Amino acid sequence: MIDCGEGAQIQMQKMNIPMARVGHIFISHNHGDHVFGLPGLISTMALLGRTADLHIHGPRELQEYLDTIIQIYCEGITFQILFHPIDTRTHNIIYEDRSVTVWSIPLKHRIPCSGFLFRETPPLPHIRREMIDAFNIPFSQINNIKAGASWTTEDGTLIPNEKLVIPAEKSRSYAYCSDTAYLPHLAEILRDVTLLYHEATYPDELLKRAQETRHSTASQAATIAKESKVEKLCIGHFSARVKNEKDLLAEATAIFPQTRLAYEGLNIKL
Amino acid sequence: MIDCGEGAQIQMQKMNIPMARVGHIFISHNHGDHVFGLPGLISTMALLGRTADLHIHGPRELQEYLDTIIQIYCEGITFQILFHPIDTRTHNIIYEDRSVTVWSIPLKHRIPCSGFLFRETPPLPHIRREMIDAFNIPFSQINNIKAGASWTTEDGTLIPNEKLVIPAEKSRSYAYCSDTAYLPHLAEILRDVTLLYHEATYPDELLKRAQETRHSTASQAATIAKESKVEKLCIGHFSARVKNEKDLLAEATAIFPQTRLAYEGLNIKL
Repeated sequence: MIDCGEGAQIQMQKMNIPMARVGHIFISHNHGDHVFGLPGLISTMALLGRTADLHIHGPRELQEYLDTIIQIYCEGITFQILFHPIDTRTHNIIYEDRSVTVWSIPLKHRIPCSGFLFRETPPLPHIRREMIDAFNIPFSQINNIKAGASWTTEDGTLIPNEKLVIPAEKSRSYAYCSDTAYLPHLAEILRDVTLLYHEATYPDELLKRAQETRHSTASQAATIAKESKVEKLCIGHFSARVKNEKDLLAEATAIFPQTRLAYEGLNIKL
Repeated sequence: MIDCGEGAQIQMQKMNIPMARVGHIFISHNHGDHVFGLPGLISTMALLGRTADLHIHGPRELQEYLDTIIQIYCEGITFQILFHPIDTRTHNIIYEDRSVTVWSIPLKHRIPCSGFLFRETPPLPHIRREMIDAFNIPFSQINNIKAGASWTTEDGTLIPNEKLVIPAEKSRSYAYCSDTAYLPHLAEILRDVTLLYHEATYPDELLKRAQETRHSTASQAATIAKESKVEKLCIGHFSARVKNEKDLLAEATAIFPQTRLAYEGLNIKL
C-alpha cells in the first residue's frame, strides 16, 4: 500500500481488497491527507485478529505520530508494527524480496518527502521444450539454462543460450511521485517505467501557486513522463481549486498522450 | 457534532453539511471509531480558512491525542482549538447557551465514557394578542407576561397569566448513549426525552458477549427507552457479527415499538 489517507480502510472494504494481504505500507510524507487513514486501518487489522508483522516505511518524522497512535489506541494488539525510516534525500533500495525491489525517489515538497519506484524482478526466460528434447539436455541443467547458460553437445557443438530459450516478458515497474515540485532530473530515475503516477495538483495557469506550495502542474507531470519515456502516465492529487479535471487531462495529453486521470477506485492493469 | 469517526468530514461533504457551522464537538470516549475523524476534520477546517474557535468536549484521556495531532499536523492553523475535559462519572451541565443545555451522562464502558443529553431551552409562551388589546396592556409589559407575570387592571381585577398566553410548544431533547453496558438507572436521567440514541451492539443471543465487552443488546436499549418513557428510540453501533440488522429491530420493537435503526446519513426530524 502506498500512502494511507483518511477512509482508506473503508474504501478497501468497499472494493473487497483484503487487509490481510497488506504487508508493507509506504508513506511518502507526513501530511494528514497521506497518513490519517493509518490509525483506523491498524485498528481494524487488530480487530480482525491479524498476527503477521506490518511494515511501515516512511520519513522519520512519521514515527512520533505512529508511536502515539499505537500507545493510545492499540492496547493488546496482536501483531507487530515495524517502522522503517526512509532517507528522503537519496535514491536507494528500501525493500527487496524475490519478486520486487522498491527504491526511494527523493522528492521536493514543503516537508521531507519520498516517492517510490517498484521494479519487478526480471522473470526468467521460457525453456524451448523442443530444443531440450532435441539435444537431450538433462533436467538438472534447466535452471542453468534459464539463468543464461549455453549448452555443449557430446560432439562439442556449442548451442547458444538464445536458441534454447524464449525471452521472458519485460518486467513491469511502477513509480509514484506525490507530492512534489517539478524536478526535471527525475526523468533519469524514472527511465522506461511501465506506469508513472505523478501529482498534478494545479493547471498550468496556477504555475506560480504550484511553485510556492511545492506542487506540480499537469504539463510538468506530462513533461517528466515524456522525458523519461514511461509507457503510461496517471495524474492525480488535484487541488480543490480545479473545477474541471478534464482541463488538466487536456494540458497533459498535449505533451504526453498516454495520460489518464486518477479517480477513487481506479484499477490499471500493467 | 457528537463523536467523530474516520470519514466524518467526507460524509459531511457528501451530505452538504457546512463544517463552519460546527462550533462544539462532543466526544463520548477515546476509542478510535469515535475519534479518528478529528484530525481530518480539523485539517480541512484549517484549509477552508476557519477563524472561529472550535470547542472539543471529551474525557481527559483525549487530550494527549489532540495535542499530538495539533502539534504535528496543524502548523499555522488559523483558529483556536479549546479542549474541555468532561468528568465521565457525573451527570452535570457541560455546556449551556441561550438555546440549549448539554448534560453529561455517566456511562459504563471499558474506558471512561460519557453520553450526552441535549435539552432545548423551553421556548416562551405566545402572547394572546386579543387579550393584550382588550386589557390595554402596554408593550413594555409583554416580556414580563411571557416570563409568567399576571396583570392587574386599573379597577384591581387580576388577570391570571394563563389567560394572557398560549403555552409554548414542548421543548425538544436528544440523548446519546454510546458505548455502554446496560444501565437500568439511566431511565431516570433520560425521562421523557424526545429522541434517545442508544447503542445496541449485539442481539440478545450475544448477551454474554455484550456484558464482557461493556455493550448493550437491542432488548436492553429498548428497555431503557420504555422505562424512561422517551418518545422515540434510535439504535445503532451494530457489531460486525450482526448479519441482519432487522433482527435487532425486531427484538427492540417487541419491547419499545417506536424504535428505528440508525444508518449512515439518517436524518430524524424532532
